[in-house]
Amino acid sequence: MATFKEISGDVCAPLGFTAAGIHSGIRPGKTKPDLALIYCEAECSAAAVYTQNKVQGAPLTVTKQHLQNGKARAILCNSGNANTCSPGGEEFAKMCCGLTAQSLGLAPEDIVIASTGVIGQAMAAEPFEKGVPQLAAALSKNGNNDASQAILTTDTRPKQFGVEFVLSGAVCRIGGMCKGSGMIHPNMATMLAFLTTDVAISPEMLQKALGGEVITSLNQISVDGDTSTNDMAVILASGLAQNPAITQEGKDFDTFCAALAAVLLQMSRALAADGEGATKLLCCHVSGAPSAALARGIAKTVISSSLFKSAMFGADANWGRVLCAIGYAPGDFEVDNISVELKSAAGSVLVCQNSAHHNYSEQQAALVLAESEIDININMGDGRGSGTAWGCDLTYDYVKINGDYRT
Amino acid sequence: MATFKEISGDVCAPLGFTAAGIHSGIRPGKTKPDLALIYCEAECSAAAVYTQNKVQGAPLTVTKQHLQNGKARAILCNSGNANTCSPGGEEFAKMCCGLTAQSLGLAPEDIVIASTGVIGQAMAAEPFEKGVPQLAAALSKNGNNDASQAILTTDTRPKQFGVEFVLSGAVCRIGGMCKGSGMIHPNMATMLAFLTTDVAISPEMLQKALGGEVITSLNQISVDGDTSTNDMAVILASGLAQNPAITQEGKDFDTFCAALAAVLLQMSRALAADGEGATKLLCCHVSGAPSAALARGIAKTVISSSLFKSAMFGADANWGRVLCAIGYAPGDFEVDNISVELKSAAGSVLVCQNSAHHNYSEQQAALVLAESEIDININMGDGRGSGTAWGCDLTYDYVKINGDYRT
Repeated sequence: MATFKEISGDVCAPLGFTAAGIHSGIRPGKTKPDLALIYCEAECSAAAVYTQNKVQGAPLTVTKQHLQNGKARAILCNSGNANTCSPGGEEFAKMCCGLTAQSLGLAPEDIVIASTGVIGQAMAAEPFEKGVPQLAAALSKNGNNDASQAILTTDTRPKQFGVEFVLSGAVCRIGGMCKGSGMIHPNMATMLAFLTTDVAISPEMLQKALGGEVITSLNQISVDGDTSTNDMAVILASGLAQNPAITQEGKDFDTFCAALAAVLLQMSRALAADGEGATKLLCCHVSGAPSAALARGIAKTVISSSLFKSAMFGADANWGRVLCAIGYAPGDFEVDNISVELKSAAGSVLVCQNSAHHNYSEQQAALVLAESEIDININMGDGRGSGTAWGCDLTYDYVKINGDYRT
Repeated sequence: MATFKEISGDVCAPLGFTAAGIHSGIRPGKTKPDLALIYCEAECSAAAVYTQNKVQGAPLTVTKQHLQNGKARAILCNSGNANTCSPGGEEFAKMCCGLTAQSLGLAPEDIVIASTGVIGQAMAAEPFEKGVPQLAAALSKNGNNDASQAILTTDTRPKQFGVEFVLSGAVCRIGGMCKGSGMIHPNMATMLAFLTTDVAISPEMLQKALGGEVITSLNQISVDGDTSTNDMAVILASGLAQNPAITQEGKDFDTFCAALAAVLLQMSRALAADGEGATKLLCCHVSGAPSAALARGIAKTVISSSLFKSAMFGADANWGRVLCAIGYAPGDFEVDNISVELKSAAGSVLVCQNSAHHNYSEQQAALVLAESEIDININMGDGRGSGTAWGCDLTYDYVKINGDYRT
């Protein structure tokens, strides 16, 4: 994995972008920020990937229509209500795009719209009618902090990232923010992730880059196995970095993909670590599999296992549950030569070799598992494919948060 | 669903069967019963279905060999150690069958062997060497209670069932015991389920009956989405009821399947209700789907959702999570005409109609969800297929039990 210079400013770091976030009153009686706007002064190439859930939020339907031409200028996102299974949801989402376009002097088709929160509740127009003009007026080069707060639901912290890189001599940037804490088991897209860049790139190549990179990053996270109805990852590219425009594969496209992958990797780790109720980030690295796709599938199955996640919460090196999960991962592969190593800042222990118990110290294993970030390194002994997935432990707090989400 | 006369005696109720259960010391330092034996005085037709997990316990390998001829006489089952990913596991399982055969005057191939417990720990021979002869000596017509205790792991109660029915004038019986509380997400077989019957039936028709009925019963349970390495459902048929032997499809086969289905249905409900940490049994009935297979898939997806299970624990009528889970269920179906009703001993509430919010009383919903058995009735409005799945709520105790299983 290439490393890139990390920069501040996040979605506002790329040339041309401003942002804002406010409290508009979408959650009755709550004072949390709930409405975010990201705006670009130039027309952007735009690309997006969406949830594969058959039940989809109205904002996804509208955004898909608006991105048909591969162009966009702004992203409006609210938290507190998903606008999914809501009566008149599509008309409501279009009305919000209209309000945003009016405030910014754009066409409604220039707007990407996203919503996150409770499913199946009617949307109220007033917060948007009052809030959107306020938001537009508040846009600024350091509005990324407010915007990244306004998109959160049960997340405990905002998640923002930015990297700098060079394409054919031109300094370029990618910034991003994301949210997501429960209902996290992405499939082709995930939760909400908004990315900006000043790279000049055609919509087709931007879509190719995003679609290719989410497979090994955002799609490899699981908090609870529930694929959301509102997952969406969107990237806007302003082209203001003045690099030679990327219109085909080649060295610049590869560098752009690597920089995008670096941001998406940081997002994936941050989303898994902030999973609802989580106390530990679990990184499962699978190597020696027949293919990379199988390796990713095995890794994702392991970090999705409720039994394994509970064992990690209890710092119990119960590797039998790792083998059990591997055994029900999709696809064909050998299961007789598996090794499993648990690793953290406190050291490492080999707990399983040749698919059988390896003599290790339970005391050492407990020390390793007491840390807040655990690597589960699995070698399948059955090929050269490798892949990673990110998850978190299953805790009392996950149950508490979700036993009482709406109240 | 036909109803049948319930009888006591369970696995010992059918003519020819005796059973026993003892404490042999397989769990170091624990006094729980851990070794069970079911024996038949006559040669039995035998059929079984097994887990689809690619990692399988050694007892499954040995049992598959022994049932190749469709005949068996006894079932030996231990709890406390799954004999899976254990060095020399297959030889150990064969050794146990040898001990059992010797004590009973049978051939080793007459023995079905099953194990349940921790994965990846070496088996100790002494408990079996001392215990099996004791077990054989203890066999009795009312040994079913001891046997049903000895197969349990984290289960809170034994699960035994029996029905009586008539085939061509002959009174016949089916009895069964099962265990399973965590690592429950069966796929073609489930946990451990041992069934006996005195029906005269060929091994082929017995396999056909068992394989057909588990699809709509045991395979439709989920506690935690983890498919075990040791799942096995076995049925022995002594033929002592002296009904005209079932060797092809027809009225008697249909009646036998219906009686078997009745026992498997009771088992399925009991296993789900005793899921690790569970406080509520969830029965999800899907109708109006394009096919029965799709209906079963949708029902199983809903009762497997961690978010929905947590909401049920919290008595929160968060039907958006039901729609979300339906949306990621496998297969193609319409999602615009879905209705959802929640029902229990306290009444019922229609919470969703045409895939949107239906005006209901949250107070009434909370009353309905306060009960210990909840029906989730889903109509897909997209065909005539129906199916049911059984699950349980996700609770603090599930996390507690599995954060600390081995200690």
